[in-house]
Amino acid sequence: MKANQKLRLSIWALTAYVLCACGTSSAQKTAGPLVRIAELEIDPAQLEAYKAALGEEIETSIRLEPGVLALYAVSLKEHPNQVRIFETYANRDAYESHLKTPHFSKYKAGTQRMIKALKLLETDPIRLGAKPI
Amino acid sequence: MKANQKLRLSIWALTAYVLCACGTSSAQKTAGPLVRIAELEIDPAQLEAYKAALGEEIETSIRLEPGVLALYAVSLKEHPNQVRIFETYANRDAYESHLKTPHFSKYKAGTQRMIKALKLLETDPIRLGAKPI
Repeated sequence: MKANQKLRLSIWALTAYVLCACGTSSAQKTAGPLVRIAELEIDPAQLEAYKAALGEEIETSIRLEPGVLALYAVSLKEHPNQVRIFETYANRDAYESHLKTPHFSKYKAGTQRMIKALKLLETDPIRLGAKPI
Repeated sequence: MKANQKLRLSIWALTAYVLCACGTSSAQKTAGPLVRIAELEIDPAQLEAYKAALGEEIETSIRLEPGVLALYAVSLKEHPNQVRIFETYANRDAYESHLKTPHFSKYKAGTQRMIKALKLLETDPIRLGAKPI
């Protein structure tokens, strides 16, 4: 798929509307999505290679894994080698299954010498709002 | 809308599929979405009131503003008064328009004494991947 097709598809799909009133009861917490934030510092000399590997891993995970709902990766404008990934999985099983996939193993092995620091933040969703189809 | 309806709608809409190959050319950077991360520290005594105000602001922004594509708000499990909001706007105009809306003004005025610290991080998207309908 060409980049501009992906962008159009993105804009189309991001017009989907969703409001997730998460965490308002313990039952919903159990059933609701698992959201994590990864904070990474990348070796500046290997930043482009890292971004390519991450992009491929995200594309494959979203395409192949039903329980991987969203993976949003950005770099900070003021510190481009600082990367943040906002990760949403259907539940904990989906997350643990994701860690065992060949594409995640490939990403992990291929990028371990590019990543200088990694912090994983567990979260409780307050509200996850996005546009509908 | 009841909480469980919102959750069902969320799961439905989060099955949407989108891959945004952002930032691969300067033209795309100009046309592509604006993504920011807000890092907030909330007065613990006012945390529930803040979460309610934020949830209302997100719900209204997504419903009324075509250019507000996604607002994902979470609190950190280890520091529940630390809030992160991952914000995606169609473009800079959409973001600036958002700041002028009555619902944003209401949120800003109503929460200013609840927020102890606020850091806004500008970002460059690497890849924004989410499920399709």
